[in-house]
Amino acid sequence: MASAAPSNSLVLPDPLPLDSGAALTGVRIAYETYGALNADKSNAVLVCHALTMDQYVASPHPITGKPGWWEQSVGPGKIIDTDRYHVICANVIGSCMGSTGPASNGPDGTPYAMDFPVITIRDMVRAQVAMLDAMGIERLYCVIGGSMGGMQALSLAANFPERADRVLAIATTARHSAQNIAFHEVGRQAIMADPAWNGGDYYASGKTPDNGLAVARMAAHITYLSEEGLTEKFGRRLQDREEKTFGFDADFQVESYLRYQGSGFTQRFDANSYLYITRAMDYFDLAEEHGGTLAQAFAGTTARFCVISFDTDWLYPTAESRHIVHALNAAGAPVSFVELSAPYGHDSFLLDVPALDRVMKGFLDG
Amino acid sequence: MASAAPSNSLVLPDPLPLDSGAALTGVRIAYETYGALNADKSNAVLVCHALTMDQYVASPHPITGKPGWWEQSVGPGKIIDTDRYHVICANVIGSCMGSTGPASNGPDGTPYAMDFPVITIRDMVRAQVAMLDAMGIERLYCVIGGSMGGMQALSLAANFPERADRVLAIATTARHSAQNIAFHEVGRQAIMADPAWNGGDYYASGKTPDNGLAVARMAAHITYLSEEGLTEKFGRRLQDREEKTFGFDADFQVESYLRYQGSGFTQRFDANSYLYITRAMDYFDLAEEHGGTLAQAFAGTTARFCVISFDTDWLYPTAESRHIVHALNAAGAPVSFVELSAPYGHDSFLLDVPALDRVMKGFLDG
Repeated sequence: MASAAPSNSLVLPDPLPLDSGAALTGVRIAYETYGALNADKSNAVLVCHALTMDQYVASPHPITGKPGWWEQSVGPGKIIDTDRYHVICANVIGSCMGSTGPASNGPDGTPYAMDFPVITIRDMVRAQVAMLDAMGIERLYCVIGGSMGGMQALSLAANFPERADRVLAIATTARHSAQNIAFHEVGRQAIMADPAWNGGDYYASGKTPDNGLAVARMAAHITYLSEEGLTEKFGRRLQDREEKTFGFDADFQVESYLRYQGSGFTQRFDANSYLYITRAMDYFDLAEEHGGTLAQAFAGTTARFCVISFDTDWLYPTAESRHIVHALNAAGAPVSFVELSAPYGHDSFLLDVPALDRVMKGFLDG
Repeated sequence: MASAAPSNSLVLPDPLPLDSGAALTGVRIAYETYGALNADKSNAVLVCHALTMDQYVASPHPITGKPGWWEQSVGPGKIIDTDRYHVICANVIGSCMGSTGPASNGPDGTPYAMDFPVITIRDMVRAQVAMLDAMGIERLYCVIGGSMGGMQALSLAANFPERADRVLAIATTARHSAQNIAFHEVGRQAIMADPAWNGGDYYASGKTPDNGLAVARMAAHITYLSEEGLTEKFGRRLQDREEKTFGFDADFQVESYLRYQGSGFTQRFDANSYLYITRAMDYFDLAEEHGGTLAQAFAGTTARFCVISFDTDWLYPTAESRHIVHALNAAGAPVSFVELSAPYGHDSFLLDVPALDRVMKGFLDG
């Protein structure tokens, strides 16, 4: 992958304690902000990003040059209105867009690689709360996230209950299922099977495990789309040809699309970061962290919640959101819940779903 | 992979014409039979096997020593009663258990490898019909198959309508969907990304692309099981440990299971065969072969049909079976159809589902 210097970053003043028992010192957090913070610092909205995303919510990605990943929802006059809110998004620790991760230099001045400690979703949240401390923001107007971002939003509500007024969790889950873990394990094995991975020590070699990372991305990408969406988008249509070639080229559009997704991903993402972040997601079980009962996780919450699922999301199906909502009900927390109909599967939270906009706006501005 | 000489085989007397326009000469078909063929050769049941299976339906696998893959259903006094029926199962062409495939020697005396022609489901069926010709069996009592075996059963009914009295198609589809193709493409890319694959030329090297093949198998294996089944079988339970290790070992049972599935598979299967057979499945579209209308495929049929799906099969969901049944109805063919409830996903057809036994027995003996 190519790298780019983050536009904003800060170094946490204190060592960051981790769930593993280890601690990380000199943690850098790369972040972007959009819109002005008001005088009493009461309009901050923390957006938490998903597995392969980053802090570039509403500004161009420095490597790909593509628009921010939530540009359609975040900006002046948009659903998350930056004329009104101060939007903050930080690259999670373990990632590769400027925050401390396996590609960062460790204490010995060389990249951590597999000496980077295994982190959890709660560790990612701890780092962001420490960032908010450094920014002097005591209480968020709202914490928002989809997918792994939703895990962080829920984790923040559970572990730092005094830090947010509103929690908006979209297309997410309170725990990774066996099937979720299984797909991630396929991806990790694909990366580790690539000889260029070299036990994680590839930063100096100039040879990155792109083949393995591309396969991991392809497998994961299928889980982000619905079967119906794939059929509608590609069906069995052929790619730039009239007939099947009776060979192993990408005859079908869906093959060509997946290969493109896989190879594009390797331009912007670090394979070791993929290992660490998928591990954090697989370890995520908010109930387990709180005595085995999800309601207990939310016992101390002071926030209002909004939980949104999509009917075609088979990665984190609606049943997982219902499970969260039942726990919030049991904890006596105010929560609104809606399952939206959208054809795009898990990725619906990133795409043009007008009903999502309406629900988000109602919850945020209400 | 290790190899073992097949117990029975024959060489087709004529070149086998292929859908690609090529022809294969000297095609060897390895097969097993169970039960006696009656005098008028009217009790033959052809069992067609799935992607990674073989002719060892009801006898031990020569490499793994494990029981036959359908031993619970095929044998004396069993559902497919070999006291009554002469059961035949042939290894499909393109595979690696004795029938001609990419690991077989081509005309130049060295393995075909990627010079093996791309084959189709119809080509596999053509080879089996030629085998039946050689055996003097004009009309099957029944052709049976699950998954890719069901594709072959349907293809035989469509392309050789005079060759079977009964067609039993289980957990199958008349066409591969975009999602089906996508999962197979991930597997192929995993194999091809393995440097040991070496463009398919690995037979002489002694180094087989086991890492890539294992990843392919892991990804596919997830699609054979239901989300519910995985949760019930593994959930988030840890493997031989009390606590998460904060590392990348197989902490979770589901990870350990998948790794075992992947590595076990490489002992008995050829990576190039995996490429060729998945390609054949992806190319499968029975309607396309017959002017774009599935009913047209069955226009000349003289058989009775039974179509069975499973409610937790998300690889070939019930909607695909319904699609087949509607076409058979439109073609005026007698068909019974049932969706069975079973927790095991696609693999239900291989597992202990008493209702499946009852339906199969009723259709076979009725």
